[in-house]
Amino acid sequence: MKPVGPIPAGYAAIDGELAIAGRKASEIVDEAGSTPLFVYSRELIEARVQKLRDALPERIRLNYAIKANSFAPVLQHVSQIVDGLDIASAGELEMVRGIGYDLTRVSFAGPGKRDAELEAAIAAGVTLNLESENEARRALAIGEKLGVVPRLAIRVNPDFELRGSGMKMGGGAKPFGVDAARVPALAREIVDAGCDWRGLHIFTGSQALSAEAVIDMQAKVLDCAHRIASEAGVPLPKLNMGGGFGIPYFAGDEPLDLDAVGEALERELAALPDTLAAADLFVELGRYIVGEAGVYLTRIVDRKESYGETYLVTDGGLHHQLAASGNFGTVVRRNYPVAIATRFDAEPVEEANVVGCLCTPLDRLADKAHLSRAEIGDLVAVFCAGAYGASASPSAFLGQGPAAEVLI
Amino acid sequence: MKPVGPIPAGYAAIDGELAIAGRKASEIVDEAGSTPLFVYSRELIEARVQKLRDALPERIRLNYAIKANSFAPVLQHVSQIVDGLDIASAGELEMVRGIGYDLTRVSFAGPGKRDAELEAAIAAGVTLNLESENEARRALAIGEKLGVVPRLAIRVNPDFELRGSGMKMGGGAKPFGVDAARVPALAREIVDAGCDWRGLHIFTGSQALSAEAVIDMQAKVLDCAHRIASEAGVPLPKLNMGGGFGIPYFAGDEPLDLDAVGEALERELAALPDTLAAADLFVELGRYIVGEAGVYLTRIVDRKESYGETYLVTDGGLHHQLAASGNFGTVVRRNYPVAIATRFDAEPVEEANVVGCLCTPLDRLADKAHLSRAEIGDLVAVFCAGAYGASASPSAFLGQGPAAEVLI
Repeated sequence: MKPVGPIPAGYAAIDGELAIAGRKASEIVDEAGSTPLFVYSRELIEARVQKLRDALPERIRLNYAIKANSFAPVLQHVSQIVDGLDIASAGELEMVRGIGYDLTRVSFAGPGKRDAELEAAIAAGVTLNLESENEARRALAIGEKLGVVPRLAIRVNPDFELRGSGMKMGGGAKPFGVDAARVPALAREIVDAGCDWRGLHIFTGSQALSAEAVIDMQAKVLDCAHRIASEAGVPLPKLNMGGGFGIPYFAGDEPLDLDAVGEALERELAALPDTLAAADLFVELGRYIVGEAGVYLTRIVDRKESYGETYLVTDGGLHHQLAASGNFGTVVRRNYPVAIATRFDAEPVEEANVVGCLCTPLDRLADKAHLSRAEIGDLVAVFCAGAYGASASPSAFLGQGPAAEVLI
Repeated sequence: MKPVGPIPAGYAAIDGELAIAGRKASEIVDEAGSTPLFVYSRELIEARVQKLRDALPERIRLNYAIKANSFAPVLQHVSQIVDGLDIASAGELEMVRGIGYDLTRVSFAGPGKRDAELEAAIAAGVTLNLESENEARRALAIGEKLGVVPRLAIRVNPDFELRGSGMKMGGGAKPFGVDAARVPALAREIVDAGCDWRGLHIFTGSQALSAEAVIDMQAKVLDCAHRIASEAGVPLPKLNMGGGFGIPYFAGDEPLDLDAVGEALERELAALPDTLAAADLFVELGRYIVGEAGVYLTRIVDRKESYGETYLVTDGGLHHQLAASGNFGTVVRRNYPVAIATRFDAEPVEEANVVGCLCTPLDRLADKAHLSRAEIGDLVAVFCAGAYGASASPSAFLGQGPAAEVLI
């Protein structure tokens, strides 16, 4: 027996079935017309943003990193309740343009921006988070060519990391941003060149569950920004403090203590140095806003035994749920929160493996999980499917194609 | 410094540049019009199939598992020089239909076949490799409904495994096939039900480099098939012996000794039991046929230093090369064969990291590799990109989209 992860708050049973936003899973599937299906809850997204507004100081603004989930209805919904959007490619720029968003509230980070991407972003008034001196010079040249003053910020590779984060993006040699020690010179260079200077972007890691680690990181980010602004002798109109707020995926994971993060940040803001006094302060979140608001529903098409083990074979799989299958940057596979959606309040009575329909042993959604008895036709729910699910999975693998998605 | 994998045979330098099928990488890219680009070599695919024909007994037929690479021109080309195709979904059935292939030479394996998939396959005359008793009954019922006699084989979960294989698909509890001990009863049941009986499919694993392991596996497959046919008292019109032939990806990997495999198989065939005397014997290969015939070309868009390390940032990445990035079923990341394509015969002079354009630390194509000096604009080649590259990667991640592909 291996444990499954904790089911996020906000999900209940109606008539014994998993309910999402007050509607039964089977009804949502019937209406959508097919499985597998990603279901995203409008109210859970709103509740999460409200929780952030309540816990964080009023001065802190929220950016949504659309890479977490760029399904157009989700993007449209989130964009209306946050303060800005972060993109990572020209493709994402087109998604943001597609929902009619104010592109001057968009910033673009990413280590390998092509000239065509820089050009599209500069023409649209998007802020570029510059990843290198070379990119800065290319951006200035393109701005000149277009006759547009580029909006430029510098992404800093800081000299510290987000402790305990799932993915470290700062501290030591990294492909992201400019090493902190070289940022003041670059800031002066691009300010002198007459860009529309937008400040700094300091992103140190993601998926941290420890409030202490996030608090420590935020204090260091503010200090790092202050040191850079002081040395460069330029004001900081904006500081993107990064994100890093994690969500629980696995047994034993505890939710981030957001109130503690907010209280510590309030204390930091009360003692801000002059260099940061006028800065717009942003926190950039993706997974934390949408991750727990999504559920992946897949139907059991076979139930079989092999050498005494039970296999529930579904019509979904790693082609939509790469991370849940344990194959995306994972060393040791652990179970995501998984349940039998159509028997949500039934007692777990058996140990079963939930596998996908792909003809590869990698395609496993739950390993030796303790589940309620399920039969062919039942729906399986994989939780924490709101972020890095549909968009971060190889949907064309084995000719399967993408899953349907719905925001309810 | 970390080693890179061995560059496959068949690639040379012309004017100092990597040549694929006798043409310079930069010319191929110029003609295709963009990077990143997958380039597949017609002649290398043909050479590999010829090598198989030369090494394996004449009686052995070759099936191509299209999941390895289903790019239509590759599929069309391979289909003309092998003896049958294996598919794993209704989506792949449509691909095979799209090239006008004889669908009675196609078989369909996969643990989670939906009713609609069974129906499409049965109507088309495709052989179903049945994964469970339940699937057998569904297939018979659908055949009856359609008024079509279904062509049925049974996929066996054998009681042994392919030693040293990258992915084990037999031996012990598995989601694939029917445990060997239960196959005779199921075979009798479906033969008695009047299906068009097509025999057995025994697939034990993939990506084995040890000839000894493959030889051992093939002997056991033949023995297993004999035992099942004897116990069931049914003839075996066809036996898919599986594949498992690996290709070298990493430093230290040695190519499979195909001649040794062929010689051992010749000895096995000389002493076949009566039960197998009339069987069509197939080997099913995907990666082994196309893997080394493909190269992924991506352009360097930035060259940067961070804390003394050099980063070559490319316009490609894990969204096309998930396995090469080390994020697909990998425990310890190792470098694929990677080279600077535009300086292919230059001496390696520096240690560099080759990263993709995605804003995630997972996106790494080579880690601390010893490479020739490369500048912005140079092309990087990732070898062994012919199988499980384009189709097995999350191309929509971060809004990037798929890479172009070309067969030359």
